[in-house]
Order: sequence, then C-alpha cells, then structure tokens
Amino acid sequence: MKATLIHGKHDIRISDDVPDPRIRDDTDAVVRVVRSCICGSDLWPYNSAEPSAQGNRIGHEFLGVVEEVGSGVRNTRKGQLVVAPFVWADNTCDYCEQGLQTSCRHGGGWGSDDTDGGQGEAVRVPFADGTLVPMPGEPDEALLASMLTLSDVFPTGHHAAVSANVRKGDTVAVVGDGAVGLSAVLAAHRLGAERIILLGRHTDRTDLGREFGATDVVAERGDEAIEKVRELTGGDGVHAALECVGFTEALRTAIEVTRDGGLVGRVGVSQYDEVPLGVKSFMRNVGIRGGVAPARAYIEELLPDVLDGTVQPGKVFDRTVGFDGVPDGYRAMNDREALKVLIKP
Amino acid sequence: MKATLIHGKHDIRISDDVPDPRIRDDTDAVVRVVRSCICGSDLWPYNSAEPSAQGNRIGHEFLGVVEEVGSGVRNTRKGQLVVAPFVWADNTCDYCEQGLQTSCRHGGGWGSDDTDGGQGEAVRVPFADGTLVPMPGEPDEALLASMLTLSDVFPTGHHAAVSANVRKGDTVAVVGDGAVGLSAVLAAHRLGAERIILLGRHTDRTDLGREFGATDVVAERGDEAIEKVRELTGGDGVHAALECVGFTEALRTAIEVTRDGGLVGRVGVSQYDEVPLGVKSFMRNVGIRGGVAPARAYIEELLPDVLDGTVQPGKVFDRTVGFDGVPDGYRAMNDREALKVLIKP
Repeated sequence: MKATLIHGKHDIRISDDVPDPRIRDDTDAVVRVVRSCICGSDLWPYNSAEPSAQGNRIGHEFLGVVEEVGSGVRNTRKGQLVVAPFVWADNTCDYCEQGLQTSCRHGGGWGSDDTDGGQGEAVRVPFADGTLVPMPGEPDEALLASMLTLSDVFPTGHHAAVSANVRKGDTVAVVGDGAVGLSAVLAAHRLGAERIILLGRHTDRTDLGREFGATDVVAERGDEAIEKVRELTGGDGVHAALECVGFTEALRTAIEVTRDGGLVGRVGVSQYDEVPLGVKSFMRNVGIRGGVAPARAYIEELLPDVLDGTVQPGKVFDRTVGFDGVPDGYRAMNDREALKVLIKP
Repeated sequence: MKATLIHGKHDIRISDDVPDPRIRDDTDAVVRVVRSCICGSDLWPYNSAEPSAQGNRIGHEFLGVVEEVGSGVRNTRKGQLVVAPFVWADNTCDYCEQGLQTSCRHGGGWGSDDTDGGQGEAVRVPFADGTLVPMPGEPDEALLASMLTLSDVFPTGHHAAVSANVRKGDTVAVVGDGAVGLSAVLAAHRLGAERIILLGRHTDRTDLGREFGATDVVAERGDEAIEKVRELTGGDGVHAALECVGFTEALRTAIEVTRDGGLVGRVGVSQYDEVPLGVKSFMRNVGIRGGVAPARAYIEELLPDVLDGTVQPGKVFDRTVGFDGVPDGYRAMNDREALKVLIKP
C-alpha cells in the first residue's frame, strides 16, 4: 500500500510498497484511512531526522473505516467510521481509567513500537476497542475534517484549557497562533472563557482565532507582549495562559502574563529543559500543568459539539493534498505557508 | 519595647528601645505578643543580610492578645487571643476572596512595608479584622504552640498538600524534613493520604515525621532517593510530591518521583530560577503548583483539629527561648541543632 515515509531532514517520500497491515493480535483492527493530516509536531522530525535509507513511518492523526477486526475485538465493527487518538491505548489500565491514556501501561505511538504511521492508506490498530472511537451518522466533507481534529489538535487545545483550569467567565491568554493555539482558543471559548487574548502575529491565523472566539489579538512578542496583556487586563494578567508553542520564550510569556494564583496549561511540545518559574512566580502562586494531551479522554466530550456544528475545529485545515502532495505539504507547513495540511489518501 | 533586629549576616540583636506600636490607621489593632517563633525563611536574611547600623525588624509568626483597636475595627476585640498569619491582608479584595491573601491588593509582610516584625513584645496589625483570627477558649501551654503554627508553618505544609491536590488514599512524597516538611506530612495525613514517604536524613526529625503520619522514610538523596521512592511505589512514583526545601535538587527529586499525571506542590522558598520540567515531565503530564502559602485562607479549616488535639503541629518546636535566647536560637536553627525555636517574650 501507499504510505508516507521520512528518510531524513526535509526528506519526506511516498512509498508504494509498504506492507499492507494485517491483524496480528486478536485485539487489533485494520482501518482504511479516509482522512489524515500533518501535525506541527511532525515538523520536529522533519527538521531533525537522521538519514535513513529504508525510511520510517510517520503521521499520527487519522480517521478511517474499520476493515477488519481481530477475534478478541468486542465493540468495534467492520464498516464503522472511527477516529484514532494520536496514541493507542488499552483504555482499561489504571492510567487510562484516570483519563491519562498517553501513559497507558500497554500503549504506544503510531509509527513507532512496531505499528503503522497514520499517513498511509491503512493502519493496524492495537487495542481497537480501547483506541478507536466510532463516529455516528453519514458525515459530509466538512464534518470529516472537524472529526479528524478529534485525533489530536482539538483535544490538545482542550487539554491546555483543562490543565489551566479554564472556567466560565475567565480571562485567558493563548500563546501561539498555530493550529494548536487556535484550537486552544476554540476550547477556551467552548468552556466559557469571557475574554480570550490570542498572542500571534500572522493575521490570517489570528483572524481564524477571532472566528474561534479570541476577543483580542496581541502581535507583540517577548516583554512587549507581556506588557500588552497586562495592560489589557488592568495590570493583573489572565486567569489561565495556554502555552501552545514549546519554546522557552513562549513559556516565559505565558508565566509572566498569568495572574497571581493562576495556571499555565502547557501543550506545546517542550523544546526546553527548564521552566522559568523562580521566586517571582513562587510569590505569585503561579503554577504549570499539562503536557502531551490524552486525546482519547476527551473525544466523547468534544464530539457532540463537533457533530452539531457548535464548534468547527476543522477550519484549521487550510490546504488539502493527496499522497503526492504530502512532501510539499510538509514544506508548506514548515515555511508557515500552510496552517495545517489535510491528507485525502 | 523589646524587639528582635537583624543587623546583618549572623547578627541578630535584641533592642530594648524599639518604639511601642500605636494605632495609626483606624483599621489597626495593637497585639501584645504571647508567642512568636523563628522561621526557616528567617534564615535566608540571617545568612545574607547586608550590614545595617540601625537594624531591621524581623519575625512574621505570632500569637497574641489584642490590646487596643482602631475606631474602624468591627470584629476584633480587646482581650481576644488571636493568631496572625505571616502576611497581613484586608481579606476583602478579590484576591483575598479567592483565598490568595498573600496577593492581597492592600496587604504586606511583617517587618516591612513600615510595620512591626513579629519577634517583639507587641505589633501594630494593619487590617485587624482581615488579618487576625481569634482563638477560642483558655488554651494551655501546649495548645499555644500548636495555635502559633497556624501563623505559617502548618498552613504552609497544608498549602503544599492542597496545591498538589492530595486526596484520600493517595501516596505522597514529602521532600525535606524541616519544620515545613514535617508539617506537610501532618497535612497530607490529615487529608487522608494513605502512604507518606518522607525524604530526610535527620533521624530525630524523621521520627517526628513518623509520629505525624509518615509511613516510610528515605534517607538517600538525589538519584538514589528517586530510585528508592520509585522502588517503594512499584516503579510508578507518587500521586503528589510536596517540595519543602527550595533548592533545585529537591525540586528535581520531587518532579522525578511524581507519578504520571501527578502534581508537585512547592512551598520551599525558591532559591532557584528554573524548574527542571523538560520534555520528560511533559510526556508524563507532571505539573507544579504552590508558592507562598495563603495561611489566612486555611486557619479556620485547620483550627478545629488543632483545638481538639487531632493534630499537634506545635511538636515542631523543640526549643523555647526568651528574647535573650533569640540570637542563639537563630544560630541553633541555622546549625540544624534546633528544628524550630519558640519565643516566649
């Protein structure tokens, strides 16, 4: 079958002869991919991977139709449209039960741990009953894109908001105008935040941010951005700051704009080793929570609002490609020419 | 009147001619100090203060009797026994209402902001109605000591536990066997933690920790301590780690022993600028909360258990001195010869 392989830095190729996935364990399913996409986090290996002659599978977000199930699969049926969260999990261990499927005792990531990547024609899904979430109805094109975001980007934005304890009436800052940042705006808005200050400087993106619920946009960076947010909040800062970038400077900004007693929700994949949380934040009781988002824990909660159109997270996709367009899709996202690239196999 | 002054590094003196406190604002009270004490955080200026000929007031924990109140004071009455939290606050602003009196819009610290220090014969208390908490009954000697801990050390331990979200049945690690660490053990035990692992190497202190509820003591440090806690918890780590030291290494230990999805509650006054919360903790969804403890927010909650002897936090005092013994009390605490020094003026 066709699948996307990464052969090294800036070297994405489509292979025609990747082995077709087959049931291996009796709890597996095989899913034919209907929609996949490129993640901001795929750009980290895109910019740093070591050369590899045989290439490595990549991609971890997909929506598809169940093609086959193992003999131990109980709740997942052939023909179902399903979304796969960006890690697979048994959904029965203690970590899963507490909603932390990213720490599942038997789980793992797509394209590693001897599984398929999501940017291919089909995927063997371990723990099908635990991993996959069935989508109801006969969704149209636009809904497919929003459903696909349940795989990663929308729950990741939601995780930032939940981790920072966003509540009705709160003032929230979102640091970063990438697809995760915009999803965090949408999630904060959905949770009832009254004022949402989006920190970003790409007008086309912040415009979508406004559509998603941002009430203010701050284009400044660093100390100027901090000052601006404080100015907008009567000097106090925000109840919750959602860090959706992953660099120290973004994190510092998030911490500094957070009101005393508030929380930073971090979901930008950390490119830092240290968090600047010294005595100043100690005296202000500013904390930080979050991390890799347990998307699986949130899908059922977010799904109804996606189905009835209350939220349209699929709007983060501003480009659609077939397999042939995937390599250029990576380039376009890396060059910030595209916000997020949808793949139609 | 008599009061303790700090004249520089390791230079604590008792002065006989500090001006008697007087009502200045109509919301003030004057409190005659019955008990005061030396805090671990007093050791920071003790070890670093610049030389000062006139000296500076010090001390921020006291229990006393109201001697006089301003014309605007409504609920605080002459003759009442009261405890003062370690910062004064109006207890009516929005921060106070959310239980963050340490960020009070009109509050401040004892011995600074033109107020008296707590280690003296009497103190002018701003916002008497907001700051002071009346103690009921005719407490005996032992109860006075435990009541005094409501000023700082016990609520600080409690804040660590609350910040780390300690719940019934949890496994908790407490990093540090100082008076705050031991208070954190007591607080975690009071909140229903089932297993409490105390990291400390001073047997006399960890013995009190066991009396306070510690089920395990780990005397190792650094990586060995981390390994030991993981070993004790089946490899997973603890639900909550309470950081009661303030150094990077203690913080790193707290983070590393925390179970995926868990929280570090930090109350050790941060001597660090950076918190080692890189990609590893990101993937594990380990967060950090806490900071300077809003003692005022917790006193009413903790008081009943102090009154009926359910908890005896006053046991952290292992030495009692009069004013003449205060300078040596500082030395003894600094040399780790005393755990916490009670002052009887």
